[in-house]
Amino acid sequence: MSGQSSAYAELRKLMREAGTLGSVNALLAWDQETYMPPGGADGRAEQRSMIATMVHERRTSFHIGDLIAACEQDATITNAERANVREMRRDYDLATKLPASLVGEIASTATKAQEAWRGAREKSDFAAFRSWLEKMMGLARQKAACYGTPAGGEAYDALLEEYEPGARASDLERVFTPLAKELSALIAKIKASGKTESLSIKPPAISAAKQHEFGQFLLKSMGFDMNSGRLDTTAHPFCEGLGPGDTRLTTRYREDEFAGAMYGTLHEMGHGLYEQGLPKHDRAGEPLGEAISLGIHESQSRMWENLVGRSRSFWTWAQPHASKTLSAWFGTQSVDALYSMSNLVKPSFIRVEADEATYNLHILLRFTLERALLRGDLQVAELPGAWNELFEKLLGMRVPDDRRGCLQDVHWSCALIGYFPTYSLGNLYAAQLFESAREAMPDLDRRFESGDFGGLLSWLRTNIHQHGRRYRAGELCERVTGKPLDSGALLRYLRGKASEVYGVS
Amino acid sequence: MSGQSSAYAELRKLMREAGTLGSVNALLAWDQETYMPPGGADGRAEQRSMIATMVHERRTSFHIGDLIAACEQDATITNAERANVREMRRDYDLATKLPASLVGEIASTATKAQEAWRGAREKSDFAAFRSWLEKMMGLARQKAACYGTPAGGEAYDALLEEYEPGARASDLERVFTPLAKELSALIAKIKASGKTESLSIKPPAISAAKQHEFGQFLLKSMGFDMNSGRLDTTAHPFCEGLGPGDTRLTTRYREDEFAGAMYGTLHEMGHGLYEQGLPKHDRAGEPLGEAISLGIHESQSRMWENLVGRSRSFWTWAQPHASKTLSAWFGTQSVDALYSMSNLVKPSFIRVEADEATYNLHILLRFTLERALLRGDLQVAELPGAWNELFEKLLGMRVPDDRRGCLQDVHWSCALIGYFPTYSLGNLYAAQLFESAREAMPDLDRRFESGDFGGLLSWLRTNIHQHGRRYRAGELCERVTGKPLDSGALLRYLRGKASEVYGVS
Repeated sequence: MSGQSSAYAELRKLMREAGTLGSVNALLAWDQETYMPPGGADGRAEQRSMIATMVHERRTSFHIGDLIAACEQDATITNAERANVREMRRDYDLATKLPASLVGEIASTATKAQEAWRGAREKSDFAAFRSWLEKMMGLARQKAACYGTPAGGEAYDALLEEYEPGARASDLERVFTPLAKELSALIAKIKASGKTESLSIKPPAISAAKQHEFGQFLLKSMGFDMNSGRLDTTAHPFCEGLGPGDTRLTTRYREDEFAGAMYGTLHEMGHGLYEQGLPKHDRAGEPLGEAISLGIHESQSRMWENLVGRSRSFWTWAQPHASKTLSAWFGTQSVDALYSMSNLVKPSFIRVEADEATYNLHILLRFTLERALLRGDLQVAELPGAWNELFEKLLGMRVPDDRRGCLQDVHWSCALIGYFPTYSLGNLYAAQLFESAREAMPDLDRRFESGDFGGLLSWLRTNIHQHGRRYRAGELCERVTGKPLDSGALLRYLRGKASEVYGVS
Repeated sequence: MSGQSSAYAELRKLMREAGTLGSVNALLAWDQETYMPPGGADGRAEQRSMIATMVHERRTSFHIGDLIAACEQDATITNAERANVREMRRDYDLATKLPASLVGEIASTATKAQEAWRGAREKSDFAAFRSWLEKMMGLARQKAACYGTPAGGEAYDALLEEYEPGARASDLERVFTPLAKELSALIAKIKASGKTESLSIKPPAISAAKQHEFGQFLLKSMGFDMNSGRLDTTAHPFCEGLGPGDTRLTTRYREDEFAGAMYGTLHEMGHGLYEQGLPKHDRAGEPLGEAISLGIHESQSRMWENLVGRSRSFWTWAQPHASKTLSAWFGTQSVDALYSMSNLVKPSFIRVEADEATYNLHILLRFTLERALLRGDLQVAELPGAWNELFEKLLGMRVPDDRRGCLQDVHWSCALIGYFPTYSLGNLYAAQLFESAREAMPDLDRRFESGDFGGLLSWLRTNIHQHGRRYRAGELCERVTGKPLDSGALLRYLRGKASEVYGVS
C-alpha cells in the first residue's frame, strides 16, 4: 500500500465493503435457486431488496464520487491502479446517471411485462405482449438518453455499455454480417448433405447420480478447484462467483439426455474457472478483481463447453471415463462417432436448443431487430413479420407461430435490450483466443488427449483472468491475439468441424 | 395500524429492517455449516462481521433509544404492544450497556480460549486451559457488572439475562436441588436393577439415505411445514429460523446408530415447530415475533424429542413405518422392546451422550460450579477436584480424567457462562407444559398411536408459540399450567418411565 494516497486507500476500502455486501446478495440469490423452501420467497425478496439498496447507496454516494475525482488527479499511482480508477469512474457514472424514478419504473414494468410475456408465449399471442414491448422500448430509449450516446454512435451503444463496455453496434454489425452470410451458406450445405440423422446416436438412460459423479470428475480433471467451489442442481443452470474462494456452479439432469447436463456443466465451469482466476483475494470489490464483460465471460464458458468439450481430443480422453462412470455404451462407440454426435448441426426454431453453428444466426436476428426497434426503424407491431422473414432468410425455415418465433425469449420483457450480442461475442472471442492459445501450445490436442487441461487453463489465467478489468474486451483481444476481433477464427473453426463431421466446407 | 403513534410505527419499521439483516446473517451461518466450500471461509468471516456490525449499529442507535422512550410514554397502545415495547427496551439496554471495548475483548479472548481449550481437552491437560478460564471468569464478572445485578440478586443473574430473561439463580437452585436429589436416588435404583444390558437392543446398519427418508416422514407426520423449511446434514445439528416461511433443520447420520439421527431430528424439529409457529410474518424483527428464551425454546425441542418421541404411543404408531422405511428389524420387535430401548438410563461421563434422566445431573453440576467460580467461592485451580467430587456424589462414578470431566464442554471457552441451566429448564418446562396439554387432551396417547400429532401442535401454537415474547418464561408457565415452575412434573414423568421400563420407582 506504500505510495498510495489516502483517498485511494479509502476508495479501495469502501469498494471492498460494497463488494462484500454484493457477495451477500449473490448468496441470497444462489440459495433462492438451490435450497430455499418456497415459503421463504417473500422474506427473501425483502432481504435482497434491502441489501441491493445498500449496495447501490454505497456505490453511488457523493463521497465515493469525490474520492474517485481525487484519485483521477493523483499522479503517484501505477498504470494498473489508474485502470482501476478509470473503471470505478465508469461504474459510478453509469450508476448515477439513471434517476431513481426511472430505475423504479423499469423494475416494476419488467415484473408485469414478464407476467404478460409468460401468458402471451403460452398462447402464442403476440397482441397480448405488444403494448408491454412498446413500453419497454420506450423505457430503453429513456435509459439510453440518460446514459448519453457515445460520440459518433447511436442509442443502442449506450445500452450495450451495461453488458459490453466499449462495444459499438456498428462494430458488431461489421463482424456479425460476414459471419452470418458465411454461416448461412455452410449450414445450407450441411443440411443438403443429409447426414445428421445417421450421425444422431444416443446412450441409454443414465441416472442423475451417475451424471453428477461424471460432472464432478470433469470439473476436477479440468482444474476447477472444488475446495473453493461446488456443483448443485437448479431448474436453470448458472455460475455465481460468491467472492474469494467460493464459486458455485449449477446444472440440471435428464436421464434420457446426458449431453445437456454434461455440456451445461462444462459451460458453467468455464464461467467458474474465470471467477476462480480473478484476483479476488487482493481485489475484492474492485474492478481489477472483476470480469471484463459478458462477452469475455461467455468466451470462457463457450471455450470449455465447445472448443474443448466438443473436440475429438476431448473424447479420446473422456471415452474410457464415460464408459466407466456413465454407461458402458460409450465404450462400444468409436471416438469419431462420439465426436460427430457432439457436433451435429441442425437448424431449429428455439435459440436455447440451437447448436454451435446455427446459434449465432439466432443472435444476429435478435441484434438486428432490437436495434431497429430501438431506432424506430421497425415498429413493435411489425416485429412478428420481420422476425419470420429474417429467420427464413438466415435459417431456411418458416416460423410456424410466435411462440417459436419472437415470443420465445424472456430478455425483452426484463428490459435486457443490448444483451443478446454478448452471446455471439462469446463465441467469437472464444475462437480467436483459442487460436492464439493453440499457437502458444501447438500440442494442445495431444495434451487434451492425455487429460492435461492445465496448459490451457494457465494460459487463460495469464492472458485473461489475472487482469480483471484492466483492459476493455476489444483491447485485451488485440493484446492477446494481435488483432481486433473478427469472424475469421470462428468461421475457420466451424468449417473445420463441418469438414470433419459432414465432409462439407 | 390505526391508533398507533408515528413513533411506534417507525420503531416497528426499523426493528423489521434490523430483523431482516439479522436473518441474512442467519443464512450466511447456515450456508457456512451446510454447503460453503472450505475456501470461502475468509470471505464468509468478512461478510458475517460486516452484517453483524450493521445489525448491532441499528439496534443500538440513539434514534432507536429515543423512539422506545417515546413509545413508553404512549398511552394509546394496547397491552400486547406495550409488552413489545417493554422487550425492545430490555434488548436495547442489554445491547447498549456493554462498552464496545469489552465486547471486542470477550470476542478475541474467546477465539484464543477455544483454541487453547481444544488442545487442552485433547491432552486432558487442565493446566493448559486454566489461565484462559481465569480470564473468561474475569471478563464475565466485568460483563455482569456492566449489566448490573438485579435487586436482591447476584452477579450470576445478570449473565442469565442474556439467555433466560427474568430467571434468578436462587430460583433455579430451588427447583434444581430437589430434582437432583430425587433423580440421584432414582438413577441409583435403576442401576441396581441391572436390567440396562438386557434391554439394549439395536437394529442392523441403516443407510443414511433411508434414515433421511424416515426423518422427512416424521417431520411431515408431526406437522413441520416442509414448504416453509428443510432438513440438511451437518457435523453439528441445529435449527435456524431464517425468517418468515423459512426454517432450516440439520441432523447427522451414522449407519450403526439410527437413534442419534432420529432423536436429533425430532429435537431440531421441536425448535423448528416453535420457529414456524411464531407470528413472524406480521412481527418480523419485533419481540412479539421472537422466542421467549433459550429455556422455552429447549422445552419445545425436548418435548418432541422425549415426551413425544420416546413414548410408547409413538412407537405403537411408528413401528410399521420404521419397519417399512428403516429396517424390517423393527417389525420383529415388540412395541415394549422399542419403548424400553429408547428409554435406557445409564450414567456416563459425557453430557452430550447422557440419557434423559442423568442429563439433568450433568447440568446441576455445571450450574453449581460456574456459579461458585463467578462468585469467587471456588478458584479456577480447584475446579477439577470440585468437578470430580460433585460428579461422584451425583452420578456415583469416579471421573478418570479432565477430558471426560471439566474439560469436555466448549461453553466456558466461548464466554457462555449462565447458559447451561437453560438445558434443564427446557426439560422442566417441557414436562410441566406437557402435563397441562394432557389435561386438556386426556386422549393424547390414543392420538399419538394413530399418528395424530396435530392436537398437541395446535395446543402449543395457541398456548405458547403465538405469543412471541409477550410473557416472560416464568409468567407464561404460570398462565398455562396454573403454577410456577417446579420439579414435580419432570420427576413424575421420569419415575413413570422408570417404573414401566425398569420396574423401579
